[in-house]
Amino acid sequence: MVDALLLDLSGVLYDGDEVVPGAREAVRRVQASGLPVRFITNTSRKTRSRLLAQLGQLGFHVEDEQLFTAVDAARQWLRQRSLRPFCLVHRDIVGEFDEFEQNDPDAVLIADAAEDFNYRNLNRAFQLCLAGAPLLGVGYNRYFKSGDQMLMDVGAFIRAIEFAAGVEATIVGKPGTEFFNQVIASTTAAPARALMVGDDVFGDVEGALEAGIPACLVRTGKYRAGDEERVAGDFQVVDSVVEAVELALA
Amino acid sequence: MVDALLLDLSGVLYDGDEVVPGAREAVRRVQASGLPVRFITNTSRKTRSRLLAQLGQLGFHVEDEQLFTAVDAARQWLRQRSLRPFCLVHRDIVGEFDEFEQNDPDAVLIADAAEDFNYRNLNRAFQLCLAGAPLLGVGYNRYFKSGDQMLMDVGAFIRAIEFAAGVEATIVGKPGTEFFNQVIASTTAAPARALMVGDDVFGDVEGALEAGIPACLVRTGKYRAGDEERVAGDFQVVDSVVEAVELALA
Repeated sequence: MVDALLLDLSGVLYDGDEVVPGAREAVRRVQASGLPVRFITNTSRKTRSRLLAQLGQLGFHVEDEQLFTAVDAARQWLRQRSLRPFCLVHRDIVGEFDEFEQNDPDAVLIADAAEDFNYRNLNRAFQLCLAGAPLLGVGYNRYFKSGDQMLMDVGAFIRAIEFAAGVEATIVGKPGTEFFNQVIASTTAAPARALMVGDDVFGDVEGALEAGIPACLVRTGKYRAGDEERVAGDFQVVDSVVEAVELALA
Repeated sequence: MVDALLLDLSGVLYDGDEVVPGAREAVRRVQASGLPVRFITNTSRKTRSRLLAQLGQLGFHVEDEQLFTAVDAARQWLRQRSLRPFCLVHRDIVGEFDEFEQNDPDAVLIADAAEDFNYRNLNRAFQLCLAGAPLLGVGYNRYFKSGDQMLMDVGAFIRAIEFAAGVEATIVGKPGTEFFNQVIASTTAAPARALMVGDDVFGDVEGALEAGIPACLVRTGKYRAGDEERVAGDFQVVDSVVEAVELALA
């Protein structure tokens, strides 16, 4: 019995521009059932509005309040502490941080900066952290799938800064428990009666389990054979989100 | 009683273009005493011949066979295994790997590539490692000092690849025990009767201790107050190589 369904986006609902077969219908089915659904992502290469537009174009109807992004969580974290972040983020989302004073930074935010992960920017982040600035990361994602390729994701660069400066990052997105708590709090479900569905055995599955939320790994997106053995704990493995929705509605 | 002296270079003998006060005289004194001296470095931004020339210009007389570099150790490791490395190395030392076939790589070598640590190159290294290529690193150095600045060093980028691809690197330079063993083997000293002198509490001190070699941390170069508390084990802390040489000759 499930009282809320949490769905990761990329790799679960779609892969690049291709919708996972049956995903559209499955999401519609669960939405029509009245079960609360939340869409939860660490993606940080697109603005929130661009992401909502993209979901619409792919045929997923997602309400603004149903979408939880790590970028929003980062903004909230910085705002609550009145920090001036050095934002090592993708150029397409720079505008999402316009509200912050960014001169003379006293914090470091790492999101998926893609080509802007260069020595100069990484070194600046490192130097600030070595001098005591808190390090904030959207996620610990190791890699993501883009077309046929696996591409290094933000977690690897956060690890680099952590190691060089001898600090530990605060992760505002998945697998952070706080992030899962925020999403669950927006529903009436108890964590143990929700279900998180993702293709990332660490960020989605392990993170959810640590937050007390049952999880389901899909064999789409970045999933690679044997991924389920890389994380301890009880969780289900299914072919795709179609099967996960069946489980949730069963 | 010391039977062999192992000296790190940058941060111990000099800082950029500036010789550590008294270092030249101290090295001459120990060389005149007949105590075997070895110079041991992870530096990978310069060729071996350029490094020897630079040492000469700074007033240090170093014989070719007294210099042990992580770059040499990397070459030897690759050669022994007949590998075709993807060399993510500084553009100034690319020529050091001319002997290797580098098309269709089946191994990854990470040295201090500086500005060439960009997303494209790191991602290529990651993809090769994810597909099973062994990962080789010159060292685990976190940062180094250049002028007034601390700069991210190779270890941070190795950690990034390790994390993203879920692999463990082989470190051919310091703090690798194998590297210290090679250096010690070139002398007649037993490890426990040698002394390693360095400014890096991890690479120099911790690495030497793990190889069974007594170590001495100097308060020059990248040394920062409190570094001696970051590593367990018995070792001495002295103001500079001058004092370390006095200890070795005492």
